[in-house]
Amino acid sequence: MKSYRKELWFKTPQRRGYINITSQVRDCLVASGIREGLCLVNAMHITASVFINDDEHGLHQDFEAWLEGLAPHQPLSRYQHNRTGEDNGDAHLKRCIMGREVVVTVTEGDLDFGPWEQIFYGEFDGRRNKRVLVKIIGD
Amino acid sequence: MKSYRKELWFKTPQRRGYINITSQVRDCLVASGIREGLCLVNAMHITASVFINDDEHGLHQDFEAWLEGLAPHQPLSRYQHNRTGEDNGDAHLKRCIMGREVVVTVTEGDLDFGPWEQIFYGEFDGRRNKRVLVKIIGD
Amino acid sequence: MKSYRKELWFKTPQRRGYINITSQVRDCLVASGIREGLCLVNAMHITASVFINDDEHGLHQDFEAWLEGLAPHQPLSRYQHNRTGEDNGDAHLKRCIMGREVVVTVTEGDLDFGPWEQIFYGEFDGRRNKRVLVKIIGD
Repeated sequence: MKSYRKELWFKTPQRRGYINITSQVRDCLVASGIREGLCLVNAMHITASVFINDDEHGLHQDFEAWLEGLAPHQPLSRYQHNRTGEDNGDAHLKRCIMGREVVVTVTEGDLDFGPWEQIFYGEFDGRRNKRVLVKIIGD
Repeated sequence: MKSYRKELWFKTPQRRGYINITSQVRDCLVASGIREGLCLVNAMHITASVFINDDEHGLHQDFEAWLEGLAPHQPLSRYQHNRTGEDNGDAHLKRCIMGREVVVTVTEGDLDFGPWEQIFYGEFDGRRNKRVLVKIIGD
Repeated sequence: MKSYRKELWFKTPQRRGYINITSQVRDCLVASGIREGLCLVNAMHITASVFINDDEHGLHQDFEAWLEGLAPHQPLSRYQHNRTGEDNGDAHLKRCIMGREVVVTVTEGDLDFGPWEQIFYGEFDGRRNKRVLVKIIGD
């Protein structure tokens, strides 16, 4: 069994943002030389997500409005977590909705996707350098 | 390391529906000949889910009402995504709640489940043929 | 390819609770002798979660209030599932938000985590013995 590991770094200019990381994950897969197996992609930070959905700008605006409705950033006093001096209580909850990780099938040396599947990094507490971990195992 | 891949096809008669796919996944496992490993089951479409929960009809009605409350289908104008001509903005959000995929332990040639675990395909934009991917790796 | 399997048992004193299980999962990894691979940790019950987030008490209070807002326990008549004689309809929904499982990278014999990642068992229908499954595959 082969294994491959790489960290990807991201810094969003605003507090929240969505970045299509599919091509970077595919680059990892090519570098790994793995043809059949599984590829795990996870946020290494607990106020960010990795998820699979559509690369459509209107949908990303829908994510933003919907998540802000389910777990509003303001008022900061809404969250006990913010009593620690943080202001990212909402980001911890938004990340629960969108998920920490995806596991993708590797078949014949490529990401084995349906027609519209794209991998996104979802940032809910950005403006600083944060990491995504890619681990691929297989043959 | 062995690997096995199969696509399962589903078409729900209504826009939304829940289908127990456990026996079909188990058939894949038997066909694979794999005794120890991991089994990934994921929706290949971004308006559908694969998740594990109870096969109880009342609960599925609860899912339906709850998801419709969290991300209503109507009015279509609620979602920027629908400006593309789609009417499935809600389906993209419902799928975020229920998840894209499950990873199941394979032990002694069977799905290694707790007492009530069953695998479901959750459809939020149906009435057309859509796919689920099963990938099993192990020995 | 090596594989390792262990069940962990938990009983929370109240209906809902969050338990940091990171050290128990790490003990499994040491016992497995696996250096490179993937570690799946999943709730074996459908009214509980395994998730990764911060070990901060205020945040856990935020989870509690937020999940209770999204899927209230009372009134029991709110959920069709409770007509079966159960009172845990809300727990099935809360678990959907928080997720069934996590998959963690194993690198150089350790859980390959970002700075604050900790694994939690999230219980939404406790006061009885329930199980978490740990499965590790790799070399």
